[in-house]
Amino acid sequence: MPLPTISLVGAGPGDPDLITRAGLKALQTADVVLYDALISTELLEETPPHCQRIFVGKRAGCHAMKQEEINEMLVTAALEYGHAVRLKGGDPFVFGRGQEEKAHAEARGIAVRVIPGISSCISLPALQGVAPTSRGYADSFWVLTAHTRDGGLSEDLLLAPRTSATVIILMGLGRLAEICALWEAEGKGNLPAMVIQNGSCPNERVWVGTADDIAPRVLRERDAGPGIIVLGQTVCQHPAFQRRVLASVAQASPRRQKANAR
Amino acid sequence: MPLPTISLVGAGPGDPDLITRAGLKALQTADVVLYDALISTELLEETPPHCQRIFVGKRAGCHAMKQEEINEMLVTAALEYGHAVRLKGGDPFVFGRGQEEKAHAEARGIAVRVIPGISSCISLPALQGVAPTSRGYADSFWVLTAHTRDGGLSEDLLLAPRTSATVIILMGLGRLAEICALWEAEGKGNLPAMVIQNGSCPNERVWVGTADDIAPRVLRERDAGPGIIVLGQTVCQHPAFQRRVLASVAQASPRRQKANAR
Repeated sequence: MPLPTISLVGAGPGDPDLITRAGLKALQTADVVLYDALISTELLEETPPHCQRIFVGKRAGCHAMKQEEINEMLVTAALEYGHAVRLKGGDPFVFGRGQEEKAHAEARGIAVRVIPGISSCISLPALQGVAPTSRGYADSFWVLTAHTRDGGLSEDLLLAPRTSATVIILMGLGRLAEICALWEAEGKGNLPAMVIQNGSCPNERVWVGTADDIAPRVLRERDAGPGIIVLGQTVCQHPAFQRRVLASVAQASPRRQKANAR
Repeated sequence: MPLPTISLVGAGPGDPDLITRAGLKALQTADVVLYDALISTELLEETPPHCQRIFVGKRAGCHAMKQEEINEMLVTAALEYGHAVRLKGGDPFVFGRGQEEKAHAEARGIAVRVIPGISSCISLPALQGVAPTSRGYADSFWVLTAHTRDGGLSEDLLLAPRTSATVIILMGLGRLAEICALWEAEGKGNLPAMVIQNGSCPNERVWVGTADDIAPRVLRERDAGPGIIVLGQTVCQHPAFQRRVLASVAQASPRRQKANAR
């Protein structure tokens, strides 16, 4: 019976090729894997034939299992099987509650190894050609969630429109209109904005616009999948935003020609 | 002669096992690789025997090559050899100037694929057991650089101490004392703080303290390698911070006993 150990592994944003080599090695030596919703089956197939695969995912509006239950189940799995891999979407330490799983297991005397993952907050904009930081556009980026435990918008989210940071909001799609209104209230309604749903997956969808026009389109067209919101000058690097500007210049030009003709 | 293409690959924070599977596949099919300082030789050994390996790194205080030269060299390499991999530390789009390399190549008609990397800004604290976001400690994190192009501290850095975000500062070690003073000025001198140098590498060093006491120790003991600064309540999750608190309680107790005895 091998010593009980736990690897807390980030699976990346969705594409199974965006897991790290260290994450793959952990899967290939797993005796049991506890995995979330939205984890690619290709990754589960990396585990050895004897490995137990346990789904512990939560889906929006349908909490399959409480966090405390997952914490305890992870300990039990390591004690029962040996090497337990906790496979989580994105990075385990970015809104992932990985910290709580680690603390719970360590308090029970089980060694925990953390293997970072590609976080969707950086990689999904990047895969769209939008750099969170970019010379001349943004010197910093701020990653927030819209959810606070008491259901309100976070204090930091109220401060964010005052900065020049690229603001990246996870788990905020349901409050998109309210969020965009914060930027409008700051006089930044024309700030470039982007929403990405099901990022890096075959069913990915992307909307590009500005803080004052993106919300109605997204709310009409989105599905139940997770999404991220990006607000910042850097979004103007997206090809669709550039086409949009070109289109608006083209629309403007006949009028401009008319004005010139007067 | 294969079609010229470019893969912009993030190598991760240092440990060669923290590259993605997609990044490895790109290296394994590279005809030429342009790599930065601090890239592991283990990663370069993933390239095929015919692959040209070109060092284009910059080191602090010694700019080996201008960004414009790298941009152009990358295009030339793709045209000359076929599949050019641009291998960059961390993530290419987080203070990596990857955006400029991509734009330059695309303007020359060469297809560019972006393969995200594990950014040091999230993973290095995580590998220390410190989650950038963590229930009860931090609901958001803000990643900044101390360098602005005109040499001053950025406006955003002046706002950062007013928020409750975990603040992560890259390329700021030389200005650590000045940065910590911003938090002290905001009445947050006792905020937990951490500095990591040569993160995830064998020569990694970590300092843990508070905003008002960490700078002198770091500046005395650091070497020339890169470092990141983390300021935020979440740093109290580091085992060294917890030992520090325990030690200070232990130091306090004889006095407390004395006081009780009076």
